[in-house]
Amino acid sequence: MENGTWRFRGNDKLNIDTTDTIGGTLYWLRKTCADNEDEIRPLIPLSNGDPAIFPCFRTSLIAENAVVDALQSAKLNTYCPFFGMLPARRAVAEYLSKDLPYKISDDDVYMTLGCTQAIEVIVTVLASPGANILLPKPGFPTFEARCAFSDLEYRHFDLLPEKGWEMDLDAIEALADENTVAIVVINPGAPCGVVFSYDHLKKVAEIAKKLGIIVISDEVYEHIVFGDTPFVRMATFSSIVPVFTLGSLSKRWAVPAWRMGWLVTCDPCGALRDSGIRDQIMACLSLYSDPVTFIQAALPQILHDTEEEYFAKCINLMRQGANILYNRMNEIPCIACPTKPEGAIFVMVRLDSSMLEDIDDDVDFCYKLAKEESVILMPGVVVGVKNWLRFCYAIEAPDLEDGIDRIKSFCQRHAKQTHIEEL
Amino acid sequence: MENGTWRFRGNDKLNIDTTDTIGGTLYWLRKTCADNEDEIRPLIPLSNGDPAIFPCFRTSLIAENAVVDALQSAKLNTYCPFFGMLPARRAVAEYLSKDLPYKISDDDVYMTLGCTQAIEVIVTVLASPGANILLPKPGFPTFEARCAFSDLEYRHFDLLPEKGWEMDLDAIEALADENTVAIVVINPGAPCGVVFSYDHLKKVAEIAKKLGIIVISDEVYEHIVFGDTPFVRMATFSSIVPVFTLGSLSKRWAVPAWRMGWLVTCDPCGALRDSGIRDQIMACLSLYSDPVTFIQAALPQILHDTEEEYFAKCINLMRQGANILYNRMNEIPCIACPTKPEGAIFVMVRLDSSMLEDIDDDVDFCYKLAKEESVILMPGVVVGVKNWLRFCYAIEAPDLEDGIDRIKSFCQRHAKQTHIEEL
Repeated sequence: MENGTWRFRGNDKLNIDTTDTIGGTLYWLRKTCADNEDEIRPLIPLSNGDPAIFPCFRTSLIAENAVVDALQSAKLNTYCPFFGMLPARRAVAEYLSKDLPYKISDDDVYMTLGCTQAIEVIVTVLASPGANILLPKPGFPTFEARCAFSDLEYRHFDLLPEKGWEMDLDAIEALADENTVAIVVINPGAPCGVVFSYDHLKKVAEIAKKLGIIVISDEVYEHIVFGDTPFVRMATFSSIVPVFTLGSLSKRWAVPAWRMGWLVTCDPCGALRDSGIRDQIMACLSLYSDPVTFIQAALPQILHDTEEEYFAKCINLMRQGANILYNRMNEIPCIACPTKPEGAIFVMVRLDSSMLEDIDDDVDFCYKLAKEESVILMPGVVVGVKNWLRFCYAIEAPDLEDGIDRIKSFCQRHAKQTHIEEL
Repeated sequence: MENGTWRFRGNDKLNIDTTDTIGGTLYWLRKTCADNEDEIRPLIPLSNGDPAIFPCFRTSLIAENAVVDALQSAKLNTYCPFFGMLPARRAVAEYLSKDLPYKISDDDVYMTLGCTQAIEVIVTVLASPGANILLPKPGFPTFEARCAFSDLEYRHFDLLPEKGWEMDLDAIEALADENTVAIVVINPGAPCGVVFSYDHLKKVAEIAKKLGIIVISDEVYEHIVFGDTPFVRMATFSSIVPVFTLGSLSKRWAVPAWRMGWLVTCDPCGALRDSGIRDQIMACLSLYSDPVTFIQAALPQILHDTEEEYFAKCINLMRQGANILYNRMNEIPCIACPTKPEGAIFVMVRLDSSMLEDIDDDVDFCYKLAKEESVILMPGVVVGVKNWLRFCYAIEAPDLEDGIDRIKSFCQRHAKQTHIEEL
C-alpha cells in the first residue's frame, strides 16, 4: 500500500470489507434503496435492530428527563474515572443483583460505551497468544470482528434450529481444547429469538466448569421476553463458573445511540480474584474513551424509576410483531420460519433460493429486494449462516404488514414457473 | 497468569501500570487527598485539564440547549452511520474550512468519541510492521500508550524550553528513517502552553515533505490562545504535506464528557487518494462504538451559533490564570517557569528537588503535596519529562491563588536549611 511519495503502508488487520459487517451491510442496502429514484414508497427497515427509529418505541420520559436534568445541572460535563462513575456502577450492581442469588458489588461493574465496547474489552483481555474462544453461529459478528482484530482464534458451535435454536452442547465439548479460554452465550438470543431455559444455561455452566473456561454472557436484550420461557441471567450460575455479564440501555430502553453499557464480573467465589483479569480490564479501559458523564449520572434514576408500563408496552409491541411475522411467513413458499421467537427482537428464516428464478442466494435476495421493494432485510451470511434471512419484528405493525406484503410480491414475481403452477 | 482452575492467561499488551497514565495518576492523587481525614480545606485541582469542573467555565447555553433539543426531539436515539452523521460531518467541514485556504469536504470528516478515539484510529491505521512515528516530548501520553498497544514504534523529539518550547527541527530530521510514517504536532501545545507560529509550522510541513511522512495535528486546544502568536491550523500547509487534523468540543466548549471529536483528512492535492488510508479509517471505525447521536445532531448549531462572548470570557479567564501562575512562580525558589504560556491550558515548570530536604523527584513531590496540602499537580514524568511539573491554569483565580499559596508553604516547609538561610 506504499505509494510514491508518502510512506503510508496500512495495517493488515484493517483489511476489513465493511460490506461484510452489519453496519456496512445496512449502509449499502439503504444506499441501494435511496438510489432507486422511481421508488415513491417509504423504506421499510426490517432488519436494523434499532426500535428507536419508530415513535411507538420512544423511550420512557423518565429516562429522557433524567438525562436532561443531569445535563442541565452543568456539573456533569467533566471527565469521570475511566472505569465509570460510582453512582452509575452502583446502580448497575443493584439492578443486576435483583435477578441473582447473590449481591454484585460496585467494584464488579465497569461502565462501557454500549455493549460494543464491553465486547471489545473482554475480547482484548482474553487475547493471549494461542488462545481460542467459542462463539455461537448464528451470532453477533462484532465478536468475530473483534477476535480477528485481537488475534484471538474463534471456533463456532451451532445453534440448532430443529431444537428451537438451543446451543449444541455436544459440539461445545468437542470444539474445546487446552487453549480454549471462554464461551460466549447470547441470551435472549440474537439473531434467533430464542430464550434459553434455566436448565439449558445450567448445563452450559457445568460444561464450562468441566472445561475450565469462563462464560461471557451477552445480555443486551435482557428482559425482552414474551414467550413461555422466563429470562434467566447466566450469572445465576456464577458459583459454578465465573461469568462476565455484558449489558446496556440500548435495547430495553430503545436508546442505542446513548452508548451506555456495562461489563460486570460475576464471580462470587473469587475464582478469578488472583488471575489479574481485573487489572487487565482496568488497563484496557484506561486506553479508551469513556461513556458520556451526564448519561452515566442519569443511570441510577433510569434503572430505578422507569415505569413498568413502559417495558410492558414495548414487550406487547414485540410480541405482536413476532406473531405477525411468524404467522405470515407461511404465505411465502420460498421462506420458512422454523421456530416462533420468544425474545429479543430478531428471528431467522430459511431461504430456499432454488424456488426463485434469478436469485443466487441470501445476499442477492436482499440487494434485489432493497432495489425493487425498498425493504431492508439482513442476509444470514452476515450473522454466520448462508441462505437465511434475519428479520427484526420490533417495528410498527402496519409497517411490518406492508413489508411482508412487499416481500411476498417480490417472491411471487421471482418465483420459478413450476412453483407458481404448484401453488 | 494461568490459575489453577480457569484458563485466563491475559494479554501482555495490557500489562500497563495505570499509575503511569494521566487518568490513573489523577485517580491516585485524588485518593491520596481523600485519605487524609484531617484535611478540612477543599482540594485544589491544579492539573486535570478539565475546566468544566469550575462554574466560571460552564459551557455556552446555546450548546447545552442544542443538545437538550436534539434529545427531546426523540428522533435521535438511534444508531447513525459508523463514521458519523452527515449534518455533523458537514458542520465540522465548514467549521475547519473557515481557518483554511481551501474547503474541507464532508467526506474528509470522521466523527469520533473525543480526540482520544481520533488518536486511537490514526495510530491503528499507521501501525504497519516495522513502521515508526515521531512524537513530541513532553507530549500527550495517550499517543505513546496507543502506539505501544498497536506495536507502532515511537521516537521522541524534544520541545525546547530555552526556545519557548518550539519543536527541535534538527532532531526530527535526525530521528526519521525509511520506516518513519508520520509526525505528531500538538498545537496549541499541551502541556507547555506554546502556540506554534506560521513559520515554524511551515518548516515542519517542509521537513515532513522532504522525509515523505504525513503530519498528525492534534488541535484539541484549537483557538485557545491569548498571547502574541495567533492560532494557525497545520492544515494550512496541507498542499505541502497531507495533514490529519484531530479536534473536539472538549476544551474550547469545556465539555470533555460529551466525547464529541473528529478526525479530518486534509489532503487537497489528493496525495493519499489511492493509498487506501480512507478504507482503513472506515474499517477501523466500523469496529468501534460511535459518538452519541443526539450530541452529533446538535453539532451544527453548536459550531455555528455559539456566541463569541462565551469564547472571549473563557480566553480571558485563561489569560488571567496564566498571568497569575507565571508571575507567582518567582515566589518559590525550587520551581522555575521558563516560558510564559500563550495558549492551551497548561504550562510546564521545572522542579529543583535538590533544594528540598526530603523530596526525591517530581512524583514524590506531587504525592506529598497531595497528602499535606490537598493540591493536585501532575508529575512531569507522566508527560515525558522527569523533574518537571504540569500546571493547569484553567481554574478560578481565587482557587489558583490558594493553590499557589499552599505549594509555596509546602516548599518552604521542605526546603533544605541552607537554602532557607540564603533567602
